[in-house]
Amino acid sequence: MKMKTRIWLLAGAMVTMAFAPGCKPKGAQSALSGDAASKVYVAPGEHDEFYNIVSGGFNGQMSVVGLPSGRVLKIVPVFSVHPENGWGFSEESKPMLNTAHGFVPWDDLHHIAISTTNAEHDARWAFGNGNNTPRIARVDLTTFKTVEILEIPNSAGNHSSPFITENTEYVVAGTRFSVPTGDNRDVPIETYKENFKGTISFISVDKDHGTMDLAFQIEAPPFNFDLARAGKKKSHGWFFFSTYNTEMAHTLLEVNASQKDKDFIMAVNWKKAEQYIKEGKGKKTKAKYAHNVWDENTHMATSTIKEDILTLDPKELKDIIYFIPCPKSPHGTDTDPSGEYIIGSGKLAAIIPVFSFTKMLKAIENQDFEGTIDGMPVLKYESVLHGEVEKPGLGPLHTEFDGRGNAYTSMFVSSEVVKWNIETLQVLDRVPTYYSVGHLMIPGGPTGKPHGKYMVAYNKITKDRYLPTGPELAHSAQLYDISGDKMQLLLDFPTIGEPHYAEAFPASLIKDKQVKFYPLEKNNHPRALKGINNARVEREGNKVHIYMTTIRSNFRPDNIEGVRVGDEVYFHVTNLEQDWDVPHGFAIKGANTAELLVMPGETATLKWVPDRVGIFPFYCTDFCSALHQEMQGYLRVSPAGSNPVIKYSTGE
Amino acid sequence: MKMKTRIWLLAGAMVTMAFAPGCKPKGAQSALSGDAASKVYVAPGEHDEFYNIVSGGFNGQMSVVGLPSGRVLKIVPVFSVHPENGWGFSEESKPMLNTAHGFVPWDDLHHIAISTTNAEHDARWAFGNGNNTPRIARVDLTTFKTVEILEIPNSAGNHSSPFITENTEYVVAGTRFSVPTGDNRDVPIETYKENFKGTISFISVDKDHGTMDLAFQIEAPPFNFDLARAGKKKSHGWFFFSTYNTEMAHTLLEVNASQKDKDFIMAVNWKKAEQYIKEGKGKKTKAKYAHNVWDENTHMATSTIKEDILTLDPKELKDIIYFIPCPKSPHGTDTDPSGEYIIGSGKLAAIIPVFSFTKMLKAIENQDFEGTIDGMPVLKYESVLHGEVEKPGLGPLHTEFDGRGNAYTSMFVSSEVVKWNIETLQVLDRVPTYYSVGHLMIPGGPTGKPHGKYMVAYNKITKDRYLPTGPELAHSAQLYDISGDKMQLLLDFPTIGEPHYAEAFPASLIKDKQVKFYPLEKNNHPRALKGINNARVEREGNKVHIYMTTIRSNFRPDNIEGVRVGDEVYFHVTNLEQDWDVPHGFAIKGANTAELLVMPGETATLKWVPDRVGIFPFYCTDFCSALHQEMQGYLRVSPAGSNPVIKYSTGE
Repeated sequence: MKMKTRIWLLAGAMVTMAFAPGCKPKGAQSALSGDAASKVYVAPGEHDEFYNIVSGGFNGQMSVVGLPSGRVLKIVPVFSVHPENGWGFSEESKPMLNTAHGFVPWDDLHHIAISTTNAEHDARWAFGNGNNTPRIARVDLTTFKTVEILEIPNSAGNHSSPFITENTEYVVAGTRFSVPTGDNRDVPIETYKENFKGTISFISVDKDHGTMDLAFQIEAPPFNFDLARAGKKKSHGWFFFSTYNTEMAHTLLEVNASQKDKDFIMAVNWKKAEQYIKEGKGKKTKAKYAHNVWDENTHMATSTIKEDILTLDPKELKDIIYFIPCPKSPHGTDTDPSGEYIIGSGKLAAIIPVFSFTKMLKAIENQDFEGTIDGMPVLKYESVLHGEVEKPGLGPLHTEFDGRGNAYTSMFVSSEVVKWNIETLQVLDRVPTYYSVGHLMIPGGPTGKPHGKYMVAYNKITKDRYLPTGPELAHSAQLYDISGDKMQLLLDFPTIGEPHYAEAFPASLIKDKQVKFYPLEKNNHPRALKGINNARVEREGNKVHIYMTTIRSNFRPDNIEGVRVGDEVYFHVTNLEQDWDVPHGFAIKGANTAELLVMPGETATLKWVPDRVGIFPFYCTDFCSALHQEMQGYLRVSPAGSNPVIKYSTGE
Repeated sequence: MKMKTRIWLLAGAMVTMAFAPGCKPKGAQSALSGDAASKVYVAPGEHDEFYNIVSGGFNGQMSVVGLPSGRVLKIVPVFSVHPENGWGFSEESKPMLNTAHGFVPWDDLHHIAISTTNAEHDARWAFGNGNNTPRIARVDLTTFKTVEILEIPNSAGNHSSPFITENTEYVVAGTRFSVPTGDNRDVPIETYKENFKGTISFISVDKDHGTMDLAFQIEAPPFNFDLARAGKKKSHGWFFFSTYNTEMAHTLLEVNASQKDKDFIMAVNWKKAEQYIKEGKGKKTKAKYAHNVWDENTHMATSTIKEDILTLDPKELKDIIYFIPCPKSPHGTDTDPSGEYIIGSGKLAAIIPVFSFTKMLKAIENQDFEGTIDGMPVLKYESVLHGEVEKPGLGPLHTEFDGRGNAYTSMFVSSEVVKWNIETLQVLDRVPTYYSVGHLMIPGGPTGKPHGKYMVAYNKITKDRYLPTGPELAHSAQLYDISGDKMQLLLDFPTIGEPHYAEAFPASLIKDKQVKFYPLEKNNHPRALKGINNARVEREGNKVHIYMTTIRSNFRPDNIEGVRVGDEVYFHVTNLEQDWDVPHGFAIKGANTAELLVMPGETATLKWVPDRVGIFPFYCTDFCSALHQEMQGYLRVSPAGSNPVIKYSTGE
C-alpha cells in the first residue's frame, strides 16, 4: 500500500510540475529573441546540417527530420502498411510484413540504431525495432527504403532493441516481456517464475551488404529487459542491458514490479559468447520466424520462414553474464564516448549511478560478488560504482553525451534535461522541457564521436504547445543549442507518430550517395518492361496479367477489354522515366487496396478482383507533368462466365 | 502530330525553366535575411496564427499545418487506413471505409472546403474528396475527426469536388471521368460518346449537424470535369465547373484531349435546379452507394448502403446549364471575393480569361448563344468576357485572392506565381516557385473575406530543395509574404503526402472550441465501462468479449485465461482518463491488425483470432506515465477444442 501511494504521488508530481505556473516557458520566451529564430531558420535553397532519423513509435515507421529546422523530410514505411505509396499493398512489398503469425500490418517502432564503424557513424543503414511482434528492420540510407525485416522468436515486446556493437557486428534484441518458450507454452500465467524466460538475441550483420542473421540467443531470467547499449573502445566486446521487474511479477506491475530498491544492469560478454558459439556450445532449438528481404534489382521482397536457432545457456556458461545492481527500475543504460562509464537511469531512483567498466572487470576478476541469480554472479554495487549524480531531478530515463565530457539526462517526472560532468558527477545546468521528456538525442550522441551542437528532447505530453487539434495531439520535440555552457531552447516542433529514440548524423555523410532513380537496364523484375513496345495483356486461366508502362503522360495500354468479373487482374506497372523525382502513381476505381507509387525505373504490381460489370477508369495519382490530368485509361469488365476477347490499345 | 510536338515542348519547357540557372533562388536568398526568419518563427510557447488544412493527395488524409511556421500539427485520417491510431482497423472505425465495392483502405484526397456562412469561413467542418472511389468526407473541426463519408454513384475520378455554396447549403462533386451509368455498363470503350455520361452531384449539408445527403445529380455531357467554384454574393445560386476533354477522347488523352482551342466553364443555376427538384422534376434512378456516419456518443460508425438518387436532365430542363467557352483545357475556375468575376485557368492557354457574372446573365437574357450542346446553350465568349490577362506566364492552374482587388495565379509550366489586378487585368508582380507550383492558397482566399497576409504555393516537384532522401521525396510547399506590393518568399516546408488544394483560416475561429476529452458519462458505446469494477471476460460461443479498462498505469483485467486457438476475441477497451492528452494504446503480440489508440473517455475494440497456443503479452503503446512501461498484461491461449475455464484478474 505504501508503494502504491508513492506511485500515485509520482504520477501526480508529473502533472503538477508540468503545469505549475512557474513551469510555463516565460523565461525561455524572453531568451528567445531573433537569435533563436535565425539559429533554426534554413533559408529556401539551403539544406539542413543534420539528418535526424526518428522512430515513429506507434506508427511503426521512421521519419527523417532535418536539423536544425525540425522539418519532416520523409516518412519511411517500415513495419506498418503505408497506403500512400503501396507499402504492404503492392504484391512486391507484401512479403516484407510477413511473420510467423502471418501478415501483420502494424508495429510499434521505438529505437533507432545508425550503423557505425570504429564506434563512429558510417550511416550506411538505420535499424529499427518492432516491439509488438518482435522484429528488427534495416533501412538502406542510400534509398531510404526498408530492405530487410527479421523476426525475433522467443521474444515479446521487443523493447531492448536494436542496439549495435561498435563495428555493427551485431544488432541485439532483448525481450521486454518474458514468455514461455519451446513446446511448453500452454501454462498458467501464475507459473510465471517457473515457466517464463527472458532471451537476448544477437543478430549478425554482414559487413558488406548489411544482411542480418540470428546468430545466437542467450537465455536469461524472466525479467523485463528495457534498454541496452554496447560497450565501445575499451569496453568493446561487452553489452549492457537494463532490467526491471526483477520481482518477476505478472500482474499489476505498476505496483508489483516496483518493490525492490535495486534492479540490475545485465553485462554480457558477447565476445565470449561468440567464442562459445564457435566452439559448438550453442544448442540448436526449434522456433519459427520470418526473414524478409527486399531485392533492389527485382524490386521485390521474399519472405522465408526459418525454423531453428542456436541458444546459449548462461546457467552453464557462467562467464558470459554478470549482474550490476542498479537503483531503481532502470530504463536507459548508456555508455559514454570513451566506453569507460555506464550510466543507469533508474526511473524511480533519486540519484543517477555511474558505473566504471574498469572497476567492473576488476570486480569480476576479484569475484567481488554479492550473490548469484541462477548461477550468474551479481557484482557488488560499490565495487563497480564510479559514483552517483546527486539530486539530478525526478525520473531519469536516458543519457546522451556531447563529446566534451558532459552527459545530458532526460527527467520524465520533473520534466527537464540535466547536464552533468561525467568525471566529477556535478550537475552543471538544467532546462525545462514541455512536457515530460522521454528520450533525448545529441547527433552522434551514442557513438564515440558526438557532435555536441544540438540536443533534441522528445516529449511525451503536448497539451497546449501548439494550436489545439481536438483530443488527439501530435507528439512534440524541442531543439536546444548545447554549444555553450548553458543549454538554450530554440524550437518546438511536432513529430510524426510518437518519437522514442532517434539518432542524428552530419548530412555530409550520405547526401552525395543518394540513389536518385533505378536504372531500367538493371530492372530484373520478371514482369518488367524496358520500353513501351511490349506493353500487353495476357490471360492465364482466371488470371489476367497487364504489362503496363508509364511515361509522361500516358499509360500503355490505356484501353483494355476482355476482363471478367472475378478474374484476378495484375497490373504490372513499369515506370520508364529515368530522372529524379518523376514517380508515377496507379489506381483503379473501387479496388480493395491502396495505390501504387512507382519510382523511375521500378516495376510494381497491383492486384485487383473486379466486383461488377462496367467501365473502370484508372489514372496517374502523382502529378507528373502539365498533362498529368490527361494520364488516364479505361478497363472494361464483362460478366463472369462470358467469353470476351482480350483487347488493348493506346491512341487507337 | 503537330499537337504531340507541342505537348512535348510543354513538358520540356517545364523541366528547362525549372532548372535553368537563372531560376535558382539567388535573388530570393539574398532577400532572405533575418527578416524572413523572424516572420516564420513561432517561439516555444506561442501559437501559429492560422490553421492550414491541407489535402494529402495520394495519402488520402488531411494534414493540419500551422502558419506561418509550416509545422504539421496533425494528420487526420480520412479515406486511408491509419495504423497509427487504428483508423480502419478498429471494429468501430471499419464501417467508415465501407463502399459499394466493399472495404476500400485508400483514396486520393485532392481538395479541401472549409464550411462558410455568408461566404465567410465559419470553420465548423472541413470537407475533402476521395477521387478514386468517389466519396466526400466531412471532418469535425472541434475534434479533428472524420465523422462522415458519403459515396458518390455514377462518378469516377471524383476530382471536381468538394466545393461549397456560400452558406454550405451544398457540397458539389463533378465526375472527372465520365462512365456508363445505370444498367447498360458492359459497353465497348470505343462507344464513349454514345454510352458514357458526366454527372454533377449536389450534396445537401444539414445546417446544424452537417449531415450530408445526396440531394440530386445533374446529367452532363461526357466531358472531364476538373474543378469548380460556387458563385458568391451577387452570383450566389450559381456554380461554375471547368471542363476538359470536350473532344470526348477515350485514349491517349495527352494528345486527343488537347485538340480544341477552347473547352468550357459550365455554369449551373443550382437555385433553379433546386426549384425543379421541389417541383418533382427529379427522376428517381437506382444506384448503390455507401453513407458512413461516426457517432461521437457511441464512438462507433455505421455504414448504410443507399439505393437510389434523384436525377435532373438538363437536356429537358434547359435553363440550368450554360457553357462559357474557355481557352484551353481549363483547370481551375475561381470566383473573386465579390462574386462578379470568374477566372478560368486554361493550363494550355497563353492568356487568363476573366469572365463577368453580370455579363453572363445579360448574355443569357439576350440569348447571346453561339450554339448548343445536347440542347444546352453555349454562350458567346466575347459576350461574357470581362477581359484577358495577357502574357501571365505558362500553364496557369489556379487563382486565389487577397481581398485588396488582386488575384494570384499559379503557373505550373513557368514555375511561378503571378499577381494581377482583377479590374485592370495588369500583371503587378511575379515570383518563382521551386518547382512547378500546382495549387496555391491564401487564408480565406476562396471566400468573400480573404486574409491577404500569406500565400502558400504547393509545388509538384521537389528535387534539390531539401536534404535528399533517395528516389522518393517529400512534396514541398513555399510560404510567401503578400502583405506588401511585392511578394516575398519566406520559407520552404515539406508536406505530408501530395498536397493539392488547401484552405486556411484564423486560429481564433476554432481554437477555443476544441474538445479535449470525451465525457465518460456520455459514452454510450454498448460495451463501455464507466469504472474499473465491471472489467470482465465473457464467452459467447466462439466469441470472447473482454471488457477492459485503462487508467494510469494498468489494464483491468491484466491476466486472462480461458481463450482457445481460433476464438474470435474482442478487446473492448475503455480509457477511463478524463483529462486532455492522456490517450492509452492497446496492442497484443502477433495480431493481424493495428493497435488501438483510445482517447480519454472513449471505447474502442480490437478483434483478434489467436493462431497458436501460448502466452500473449499485451501492453499500452502510448507513453502515459512514469510507470507506463509497467502497463502490460498476459493472455493465455489454450488448444482449440480444449475446455479451459475463463479466468481474469488484476493484482492477484
